[in-house]
Amino acid sequence: MTLATPSLAGAGTWIKAMVDGWARFSEDGDKLTRVFLSAEHKACAEAVMTAMRAAGMSARIDAVGNVVGRYEGEAEGAKTLITGSHIDTVRDAGAYDGNLGVALPIACIADLDARGKRLPFAVEVIAFGDEEGVRFPTTLSGSRSIAGTFDPAALSVTDAEGTRLDDALRAFGCDPAAIAGEARRRDDVLAFVEVHIEQGPVLEAEGLPVGVVTAINGASRYSITLQGMAGHAGTVPMNLRRDALAGAAEMIGAIERRGGTEEGLVATVGRIEAAPGAINVIPGRVSFTLDLRAPDDAQRAAAVASVKEKIKAIADRRNLDLSVDLLYEEGAAACDAGLMTQLDRAVERQGLRALRLPSGAGHDAMALADLCPIAMLFVRCGGGISHNPLESITGEDAEVAARVFLDFLEHFDPNFR
Amino acid sequence: MTLATPSLAGAGTWIKAMVDGWARFSEDGDKLTRVFLSAEHKACAEAVMTAMRAAGMSARIDAVGNVVGRYEGEAEGAKTLITGSHIDTVRDAGAYDGNLGVALPIACIADLDARGKRLPFAVEVIAFGDEEGVRFPTTLSGSRSIAGTFDPAALSVTDAEGTRLDDALRAFGCDPAAIAGEARRRDDVLAFVEVHIEQGPVLEAEGLPVGVVTAINGASRYSITLQGMAGHAGTVPMNLRRDALAGAAEMIGAIERRGGTEEGLVATVGRIEAAPGAINVIPGRVSFTLDLRAPDDAQRAAAVASVKEKIKAIADRRNLDLSVDLLYEEGAAACDAGLMTQLDRAVERQGLRALRLPSGAGHDAMALADLCPIAMLFVRCGGGISHNPLESITGEDAEVAARVFLDFLEHFDPNFR
Repeated sequence: MTLATPSLAGAGTWIKAMVDGWARFSEDGDKLTRVFLSAEHKACAEAVMTAMRAAGMSARIDAVGNVVGRYEGEAEGAKTLITGSHIDTVRDAGAYDGNLGVALPIACIADLDARGKRLPFAVEVIAFGDEEGVRFPTTLSGSRSIAGTFDPAALSVTDAEGTRLDDALRAFGCDPAAIAGEARRRDDVLAFVEVHIEQGPVLEAEGLPVGVVTAINGASRYSITLQGMAGHAGTVPMNLRRDALAGAAEMIGAIERRGGTEEGLVATVGRIEAAPGAINVIPGRVSFTLDLRAPDDAQRAAAVASVKEKIKAIADRRNLDLSVDLLYEEGAAACDAGLMTQLDRAVERQGLRALRLPSGAGHDAMALADLCPIAMLFVRCGGGISHNPLESITGEDAEVAARVFLDFLEHFDPNFR
Repeated sequence: MTLATPSLAGAGTWIKAMVDGWARFSEDGDKLTRVFLSAEHKACAEAVMTAMRAAGMSARIDAVGNVVGRYEGEAEGAKTLITGSHIDTVRDAGAYDGNLGVALPIACIADLDARGKRLPFAVEVIAFGDEEGVRFPTTLSGSRSIAGTFDPAALSVTDAEGTRLDDALRAFGCDPAAIAGEARRRDDVLAFVEVHIEQGPVLEAEGLPVGVVTAINGASRYSITLQGMAGHAGTVPMNLRRDALAGAAEMIGAIERRGGTEEGLVATVGRIEAAPGAINVIPGRVSFTLDLRAPDDAQRAAAVASVKEKIKAIADRRNLDLSVDLLYEEGAAACDAGLMTQLDRAVERQGLRALRLPSGAGHDAMALADLCPIAMLFVRCGGGISHNPLESITGEDAEVAARVFLDFLEHFDPNFR
């Protein structure tokens, strides 16, 4: 069987125009802020449905506020390959985070539809509504509902105004009681493949428009506090000090070195506070945070253990009281080897080197991993900048990514496992 | 000539009781706060004069609010050895900072007076009023007036309530126009020798009640700012980061190591701020302070130059934009070699090892250095703690220090230079 080479000429311009258009659905004037179940979310969802329908798909808003577009396969009731991403945003967001992964597959389906082409499986494009977790103290509600892992207890959480999630869903036109029914049967779903901007600088540094994600990194976050002895910066000799900041500095160095020793591992100290915080007083107490991520849970556990051992040794040597408190822990979600290979091949068929890289940020694919094999295609973004109005992609990269994704769809082998 | 061995039995108890009594002159209930030219300062000054007169001295409040006690020598008009310290305090202060150096010499003079003994020179005990610089944006007004370096422009500065210094002086009973007349003639003054608690932990660590100060350290203070690139803690690989905090940590390590390489040198990073300061964001901007002190100006200049070179190299290697801004610089005030030797001998005659150490904190002696040779005798304080209600000395140490100081006075050779 010979498949048509995807054309998609001009798709980059179309995708960027589509996403830029959606970016006008904002509560924040000239900034982009579109939170879960807001009026702007609803307006954007309507626009997404319009685009889906124009691309030959059926479209509906489901019980949890997801926009679900479906492009049937050659046969009714064929198994489904799900793609998509989120259309909610952080405050003062960039336009492409999430939204690109909705617009780009619609462009690919539009191309198939224009050619009257059906695939041996159905394709669903889902625009999830709650990936960023900005409005409610929930996250991934939409993708978890599809995966069947949505916890109904979350329906009673409230936003800053005191509005309950279930009331907000009803106001959006959804039926919270029907959420459980949105869960897909494992047998019906082939895979979930998400397209997303990288939100990091690797593809730019490698000179590549796209990359194949190996895993969504697991993360461990700690709060570390050191208690030494405050003292006069002039009167306490260096050898009699218990300087908590000098100790923290040594630990930050050790953390950075450990983070740099292994492919995929990243370790960050993002916050630090030194008390009393006067120019002429030796810091007696310092708190700082550690955020450690890795594509592999065992790798992360080993790095956490080795960092803990290191900082314990430093604290002991410096006679500092140490406390290390776990704040958050989330396992890695590995991408499926067979899906990665199929994405690699699609990349290579477009004449590009297939680079594999982990995802440091969380994505809806994490939730879908509980339902089916997952994979992700990353698209280069300017300067690695995301969650920022300066977030950007080029039309050329959007077009290349669309060609790769359409090529992937047209060559997709449902028996990859 | 054989001099009497100082007795001073019970002087430690007397000195501590005297200082503890003065500590009741506070504006702050159960805390000690006594600022320049306040009602509590006036009440304390009156108590100091009472003690001076009881010890056989004349006593007066001079034009700048100093309490000046004078014990005449064998001959009228003999040259004068000046001692003393300050009776103003920081807020929530300890009792002994400054005050010890007023009460202890009064105890020594009382002993001389009880024996009917005069020395070949006059002794003045001065209780300076403005060492801490808490109330007005001035400091050392009292000791500078004696040294002849008081700047009359300072008379128009105001406190937080808007009260001018000259008005506050008049309210205290002083005549600001007479301040210039308080300056001593160089020919009349032999030396200034200040007794003060160490405010640091060296004497405690060495197991010694007193020590001889080599110099009041000079200080250089800088603000250092690093600009890197903020980024997602998950998505930016370690080798593509420009982490301002990791850079600062390396610099703090280098500063600490440089501070530890030489006797007397101390280097402190007391404040640090990292922005944006989120657990999952690589810090893009960090500011921290450097406080570097040394007993010798050339030593300090060399240390500053080497630290600057080091942090420049670290910033360059890490591709961080660096700015280094001088905030404050004050030269060292060296103690007189002949006076130090005489103090050493007095210490040794009391059966103690004569330890020499620099003073990391500033003192009235800094101002007097413009007038005459200076020296200082440090007294051990508990835990090195000062500027804190936990500040403490023992009665035993106060007594030993009084014996040493009286011995020094009785053996003092005016021709030490």
